[in-house]
Amino acid sequence: MSDPDSTAPVSVAVDPADRPTPWAQLKFFTFQPAIFPRMLGKVSPGAKPGDWVTVYDKAGKVCGSGLYNPRAKIPLRVVRHGAEGRDETAYFDEALRRAVELRRDILKLDATTDAYRLINSDGDGLSGLTVDRYGDTLLCEVMSLGIAQRLPQWLPILHELAGTRYARVQVDHDLGSLEGIKPSTFNETNAAAPRKVKITEHGVRYEVDFSEGHKTGFFCDQRENRRLLAQFTSGARVLDLCCYTSGFSLNAKVSGGAEDVTAVDLDEAAIAQAKRNANLNQARIKYVHADAFAYARQMQTNGETYDVVVCDPPKFILTRDPAGAAEGRRKYEDLNGLAISLVKPGGVFVTCSCSGLLAAEVFEELVTKAAHRQNRRLQFIERTGPGADHPVYSNAPDQRYLKVLWARVV
Amino acid sequence: MSDPDSTAPVSVAVDPADRPTPWAQLKFFTFQPAIFPRMLGKVSPGAKPGDWVTVYDKAGKVCGSGLYNPRAKIPLRVVRHGAEGRDETAYFDEALRRAVELRRDILKLDATTDAYRLINSDGDGLSGLTVDRYGDTLLCEVMSLGIAQRLPQWLPILHELAGTRYARVQVDHDLGSLEGIKPSTFNETNAAAPRKVKITEHGVRYEVDFSEGHKTGFFCDQRENRRLLAQFTSGARVLDLCCYTSGFSLNAKVSGGAEDVTAVDLDEAAIAQAKRNANLNQARIKYVHADAFAYARQMQTNGETYDVVVCDPPKFILTRDPAGAAEGRRKYEDLNGLAISLVKPGGVFVTCSCSGLLAAEVFEELVTKAAHRQNRRLQFIERTGPGADHPVYSNAPDQRYLKVLWARVV
Repeated sequence: MSDPDSTAPVSVAVDPADRPTPWAQLKFFTFQPAIFPRMLGKVSPGAKPGDWVTVYDKAGKVCGSGLYNPRAKIPLRVVRHGAEGRDETAYFDEALRRAVELRRDILKLDATTDAYRLINSDGDGLSGLTVDRYGDTLLCEVMSLGIAQRLPQWLPILHELAGTRYARVQVDHDLGSLEGIKPSTFNETNAAAPRKVKITEHGVRYEVDFSEGHKTGFFCDQRENRRLLAQFTSGARVLDLCCYTSGFSLNAKVSGGAEDVTAVDLDEAAIAQAKRNANLNQARIKYVHADAFAYARQMQTNGETYDVVVCDPPKFILTRDPAGAAEGRRKYEDLNGLAISLVKPGGVFVTCSCSGLLAAEVFEELVTKAAHRQNRRLQFIERTGPGADHPVYSNAPDQRYLKVLWARVV
Repeated sequence: MSDPDSTAPVSVAVDPADRPTPWAQLKFFTFQPAIFPRMLGKVSPGAKPGDWVTVYDKAGKVCGSGLYNPRAKIPLRVVRHGAEGRDETAYFDEALRRAVELRRDILKLDATTDAYRLINSDGDGLSGLTVDRYGDTLLCEVMSLGIAQRLPQWLPILHELAGTRYARVQVDHDLGSLEGIKPSTFNETNAAAPRKVKITEHGVRYEVDFSEGHKTGFFCDQRENRRLLAQFTSGARVLDLCCYTSGFSLNAKVSGGAEDVTAVDLDEAAIAQAKRNANLNQARIKYVHADAFAYARQMQTNGETYDVVVCDPPKFILTRDPAGAAEGRRKYEDLNGLAISLVKPGGVFVTCSCSGLLAAEVFEELVTKAAHRQNRRLQFIERTGPGADHPVYSNAPDQRYLKVLWARVV
């Protein structure tokens, strides 16, 4: 199949001298939002770091607009494509409104939760910015100078649209230095924001601690999967491998009426947060601070079995390097094999991968292989992904990462 | 990646003379349920068409059980794998119960519908049999002699488990002659069954006519997708291309509160049934008897646009032949391109493919290409498939067919 990005938009070529500044020109025809140095051609001499630039294609025709930063790993982030230039205020205003509209007006997420992703970077035409809403606080992650410069103006708009009051803005230290983002930019904003909030999702309560753990101790992306799990856990004996702060376990117990839930994680801080979450919901869950591989192997040796096993490990594939990727795939296969061996015949197995570098079909092959090796078969009943508040644009499909398989084990 | 089916189950080799009859031996190690003639080795001399046989692997070890028919295109359908033989009554009894349990006890489908798939052939370990439940009637499709011989004994069990009263059994004429299924086998059963039933799914009513149309005029597989559509159609102007009996349109109007719905199909009988369905729900829908390509092209010319466009065409890829498959892909790309051009900026596009021979990732590529060609981008918000009452076994993943992409068009 030919590259779907190979078709150029229709407009007329403009001589560089006649172009309104600032501008940047591409070396290739592409609809990708991330333009790496090798793809970037000439840039108008006066273009400053963080500038909104009109983007010209290889043939010198206008093909979109974006944010420019010569120091960055991604010196040009194209946020919109089109055969005409566009005013930045109009563009960003519409992008912010459309992002909030998706979550609040179309998906109506407020009816079931006060924690959801409000802006998903390229997936909302806002390359370099993610915003999660937790109760009255916005947690923003900034990945580009252009965004850092504009976010102070956007926060009041977002607060008004989302009905929030506070914001915490995070900038990775190394990325911040590279991009040239002043570390103090958001000090005042952050100082005013709470360090913890409590949120409620599908009737289950969680504490979200902004100062601890991987991100916030709470990932919105699994929301619908947490809810779906409850459908399978009535009266069940449940094992939650790599439980993190135990969203799956809480749904199994509180919403799903599980009889007996064991939740395992190697991260001590996560287990501590998980216990606080269980207390918040007055839920009795057995928490085990252990390596999931070792724990599953021990349960296999003990001959323990479960009606429902959930397996949601951290990213095992972190690199495109073939040896590293193969090692990651082996981990998925091993952990899934162990987990499947603990499911009673006819029981339910839920397995997740958040490795963006692992294709959905390859993940399913690995899980199938793990089952067949033990002469078990999987009756796949669902294949799901992240909630719809984590959209992906058709020109940046590699931003997909979360895959969840649901099967009965026979 | 290596073949996940290459691992043989553990048991000991048995000399043909010492095997309990009837039996069949494979030429390859495989967990596939469908054993074609080239894969089938020796069969015990007394094995009769329709027999339950113990299956031996290439090395002469027991590896499962299945139904045998030397005349059939698929002479052996392995319904279970395992290192020991199994009594057929025990196996089928459990398979039937487990199939019904999935729909009624686990998925609790009765709470939202009285139309669902009760048995999904290989996906329920019952290769060669699909059963859909429509109200008090089971619609059975029989694809093998072994199933035809046993179904009369199974129907009372199914009626008891499902709470149904009638059954209609369909056997394709050519397949029936090839398999050696006596055409009169189910005459009495069929004569007692109603010719039409009314069903209710997520609050929408439908008439299902067993004597008309492709299958029954009602496909259960799109149930959850029909419901999901309603989320996007409040006050909307909706276009439903290839509407068939108009399940999407009815959900958009009746449950979703759409302002204005146009439903288009080339099949006159489908449109007639669609109109009866609209009357049942007192829903005002504009039905158009037309080719979807021609209609969409006309609307494009007229400059018409819609808040929501649904595109659910019949199978365009019917063959593995490269020229035929390329032609089918072209049709998907063309129809999707036309459909996308009719979506307002920020509107919602829902596009389906029921071609099992089209991989999910290729379908997405085609749809993306169709959008990018017009300089439109898709913000993918969901990727769904058939309802969970259409499960697929890990050893027969190519039974998957339905793919649905949900996107905002920007």
